[in-house]
Amino acid sequence: MTIDALNATFAALADPTRRAILARLTRGDASVQELAEPFDMSLPAISKHLKVLERAGLVSRGRDAQRRPCRIEAAPLQEATEWMERYRRFWEGSFDRLDDYLREMKTKTSEKKNARKR
Amino acid sequence: MTIDALNATFAALADPTRRAILARLTRGDASVQELAEPFDMSLPAISKHLKVLERAGLVSRGRDAQRRPCRIEAAPLQEATEWMERYRRFWEGSFDRLDDYLREMKTKTSEKKNARKR
Repeated sequence: MTIDALNATFAALADPTRRAILARLTRGDASVQELAEPFDMSLPAISKHLKVLERAGLVSRGRDAQRRPCRIEAAPLQEATEWMERYRRFWEGSFDRLDDYLREMKTKTSEKKNARKR
Repeated sequence: MTIDALNATFAALADPTRRAILARLTRGDASVQELAEPFDMSLPAISKHLKVLERAGLVSRGRDAQRRPCRIEAAPLQEATEWMERYRRFWEGSFDRLDDYLREMKTKTSEKKNARKR
């Protein structure tokens, strides 16, 4: 995946309407009219969001001239998730380090308690 | 995670310099000067990117008045990945459906071949 493609994917995801459109499309293809229904938005406003999603390759349009149904394209989502996955090791690592730290603190506290008992 | 926080995280990730800064910070805390070194960028330009990362909660600044070292904060990355994970089931599902389709096509092709042989 090129840098530009990652930029476009993350930029497209940075809007709640566009994320909601993608969520709706996971349930099946839909026309612009069908997509606009649950949102209190004009068709041109929804079309504008769709254009951003299309440019990012997250949505494709069918050839049916009347409906031109929108379809979610999973590949860019997968690539963006793979980019984020690299950090999973990092944050899981940082939680591990936190665990180690807490365990160490616990040991020290019980050592102090035992020392006081003696 | 609020909608605004997800917006801010994805918007912050939509830039290659900011992604590179995060990648650098997974290797350890760094001052703005240290972060600026590998990039052909002025300190104010790097500071501007850092402000976006800070506002998104992806980077925090240390209290050392001289260096104010930058530290990566994993929580928003984790939350954004969790949001994307919901789609993993979807795209893995769509690959499963593709698998089913290819298997079906294969069966049909071999059935045709067998029919021709008879």
